[in-house]
Parts: sequence; structure tokens; C-alpha cells
Amino acid sequence: MQRYRISLEYDGTRYAGWQVQQNAKSVQGALITAARAAFDDVGQVMGSGRTDAGVHALEQVAHIDLPAGLPARTIIHRLNDNLPADVNVRSAAAVDARFHARHDAKGRSYIYQIATRRTAFAKPFVWWIKDEIDVGRMRRAAVTATGMHDYAAFADLDTEEGSTKVLVESLEIAVAGELILVRMRASHFLRKMVRRVVGTLVEIGRGSQPPALFNEALEAGPDLQIRFTAPPSGLFLDQVIYPGESYRPDLRPAIAIRDR
Amino acid sequence: MQRYRISLEYDGTRYAGWQVQQNAKSVQGALITAARAAFDDVGQVMGSGRTDAGVHALEQVAHIDLPAGLPARTIIHRLNDNLPADVNVRSAAAVDARFHARHDAKGRSYIYQIATRRTAFAKPFVWWIKDEIDVGRMRRAAVTATGMHDYAAFADLDTEEGSTKVLVESLEIAVAGELILVRMRASHFLRKMVRRVVGTLVEIGRGSQPPALFNEALEAGPDLQIRFTAPPSGLFLDQVIYPGESYRPDLRPAIAIRDR
Repeated sequence: MQRYRISLEYDGTRYAGWQVQQNAKSVQGALITAARAAFDDVGQVMGSGRTDAGVHALEQVAHIDLPAGLPARTIIHRLNDNLPADVNVRSAAAVDARFHARHDAKGRSYIYQIATRRTAFAKPFVWWIKDEIDVGRMRRAAVTATGMHDYAAFADLDTEEGSTKVLVESLEIAVAGELILVRMRASHFLRKMVRRVVGTLVEIGRGSQPPALFNEALEAGPDLQIRFTAPPSGLFLDQVIYPGESYRPDLRPAIAIRDR
Repeated sequence: MQRYRISLEYDGTRYAGWQVQQNAKSVQGALITAARAAFDDVGQVMGSGRTDAGVHALEQVAHIDLPAGLPARTIIHRLNDNLPADVNVRSAAAVDARFHARHDAKGRSYIYQIATRRTAFAKPFVWWIKDEIDVGRMRRAAVTATGMHDYAAFADLDTEEGSTKVLVESLEIAVAGELILVRMRASHFLRKMVRRVVGTLVEIGRGSQPPALFNEALEAGPDLQIRFTAPPSGLFLDQVIYPGESYRPDLRPAIAIRDR
């Protein structure tokens, strides 16, 4: 057996999330099924982390134990030939047996797509907001997001295990045509954290909440519970990085919608 | 009553085409149903032309007779509130009662999207070709496409009515990341014509047919029948123009897929 690192993209619409669950369709489950159909011997299949039901990935990273000596092309083609159309393996490489997709990841990047117009093509990949959004207000609210903070107010504490302290590297808000893009990079993410950060920023941007709410939530920690939760359709796991690797600098749409 | 010109985009995946048919879901039918739900009085609803089953539109144009004096915003919002998510009205404007979306159109532009890689997100909007494609070979084959030609070899003659002579203004082939885009502009289009032009160019590009086949088909007219038909998923009605209007110059993807 040999450990391989693979990267894959998926449209999460039809899935109950990344992680294998009983009685629900998962991306990890689809990958395991494809691997068992394609190869005689399949060991551990482990992702960098969970994505929630309906959340997409531009680049999820996983490790998978398969027979030794397989060329990257063979792994990619055989897995894809057995995967459904909405899951796509993009790369594969043999790695050291000690590589662990979750434990070794040093940072994750998520992109959230807000559409400022109705779109016939991109509904599964955006959150369409009819109200006017003041992006400057969102940016002012988000200035305190970076650094080490207790993000408990933005977490789903019923399911969260372990520390709610998160080291946030960046929180960027960009306008790309008729999309507003929010990109957040951190050491790790709490359950529903990005969706509640975006949900809060959108309430601030549409004027129904003051910009100060964001920092109040950071300072309050578990004493305050944010309930503004952006829908999963707009959210993409963008990138996972490992020691020695860096993030892609450019902030582009995951799925663009044409201006006209 | 007042005649209005509207433009709309649609994801054609779930539809049996633009035109109303018995026992099949059409985009025109969805528009008529929405108009009747939104307005007391609905007259003629007529598109610039048919699109086939599964074909999309970035900008279809239609005329619709509704009560006089409606602001554009009201028409757009009321129609969209009653349309399914995959059909989206983008503009509306009062026009002269003699305006006719089909008869007055002076040209149509179609874009076809070929994907050179598997994609988890864009499958309904591309034709994925696994083989290597020689774009230069496609371009060489296409040089004779423009001008007035008998496109009968590329038409579905069982259903085609009227002249098969078509004035082709341009046939462009561009590479945009991992997409090959084919854009064709003409006075009008025969049934399945774009899909058979693209199907032929792809056979030439992958090396299974000689570049000369394209011109042979143009010269043979109805004596030769092209059967290479690209799937509808990659095809978008891009633009319809009327007297005094011109095409958008830039050739961009209808739905982009990210390089990485």
C-alpha cells in the first residue's frame, strides 16, 4: 500500500456534506465507493476537514491509501470514471505514509458568493440578496476579524468540540461584477462559522444591524449567539495548505455570472 | 394593451426547448404561465426564434403584449416572481406595436462551450471532450464558413422549412483557460446547424476527419448530410440584434470554469 494525496472539486448540492454518515449521501462516501470500484485494495480515505450539507469545494484535499506505484494519471482517471459527475479528482501524488490530510493542514481558505442579481444559471452557487448591500459597511465591520479571536459567537456550539479560539489570517470582501465575494482564511474553522460571519456581514451591509455587532460578537464569545446563517449554496472550500505551501493571491469568483 | 420587448436568460437543461409544445415543458410556456399569473391581460408572447431541447440562452429576446403603462421594473419583478429559478427576465421596454421579435431580428449570435477537462460544476453547460483537440486545425477548417452559403448539409432537413441559404457573418474559435469557445453569427440558423458545425469542427480538431470536410459540406449542400451533432448542453443563444444594434465584441465564456 502507498499513501496518496489527492485534490478534488465538488458541487455539494446533492450531498449531506463531506463526511460519511449513515443514511445520507456524502462526498467522502462517493469517493470511497469509487476507489473500491477502481482498485483492489483501498485503505484509509480522509479529508482535510468536513464541509456541511450543500457546501461546495474548489479544492478539497484528502489522503487515500491505495496499491503502491500507481501513476497520478491512473489514479485520477480511474477514480473519475467511477465518480458521479459532480465530484471531480484534479490531482494525485504519492506522499509519505505519515502525511495526514487533516492533522497536517496549516490553513484553510473559504470563498462565499453573494449575487446582487437574480441569475438563471448560478442559483446553486450563490446567495441572491435582493436588498441593496453597502460593501463599505461590511468592510468596516470586518476590520477586527483578523488575528486570534474566540469565534464561539459564530459557532454551532451544540456540535462544536474543542477550542473556539481561531487564528484568522484574512477576511476580504471584493466586488466582481454582480457578485460580492467574501474570502476568509484561518488556521481552522468552527461549524457554520463562515456562514454566520457572512450572515452577520450581510445584515450589516443591508443596514439592519450596526457594524459594531461584528466586534461585539468577537468580544462576547460564547455569551452571544449569532443566528444569521448564510445558506450553504454560496460557500466553497477554496484551498487547503500544508507546511511550505502558500495561498493563491488572486480573489476570483468560484463560478462567475456574466454581467450582461 | 401595449407591446413590450423583453430579454431573458435561461438554463435550458430542464426544457424541451423554447417553443410551446404539447405534453412538454417549454421556456415560452413558462413565460406565458408567469405572465398570466402576474398580469390580468396577456396577449401575444413571441420569441426571436426557437432554441432546441436542452439549449440555453444568455439573451433571448421576446415581445409580449401586456397592459399599457407598466414600468420596466414592474414587468421584470412580477414575471421573475412567477418564473422558475432557471428562467430570468433581465430587461423590459415598451416598443411600437409593430415590433416583432422574430421577423425584425437581423442577426443571431450563438456560443458553444467545449471543456477540455472534466468539471464538477459546469457539466450542464459544456461538452467535455477527453481527446486532444487541435484548435489550429479547427480554425483552418472554418475559414470558408463566412459569407452566403447553403448550409443544408448541416441542417436537419426532415424538419427544416424554407431556404437553407444562410448569410454567416463570423465563425470564431477562442481558447479561454480550459474551455474552447465557438461563436457563430448569422442572419438566421437552420435546425441543429450550430451543433453540427461544432460537431464537425470537433471531429476535425481531434483528427478523425480532414479539415477539407467542412468546405466539402458547404459545397455539397443537401447532397451531403453531416451527422456529427454536438450535445445541446454546450450551446447558448448569446445575442439577438435588431436594426440599428450591433453585437458585443468580446468573446467570453457563458459560464466560466476555473483553471485551478
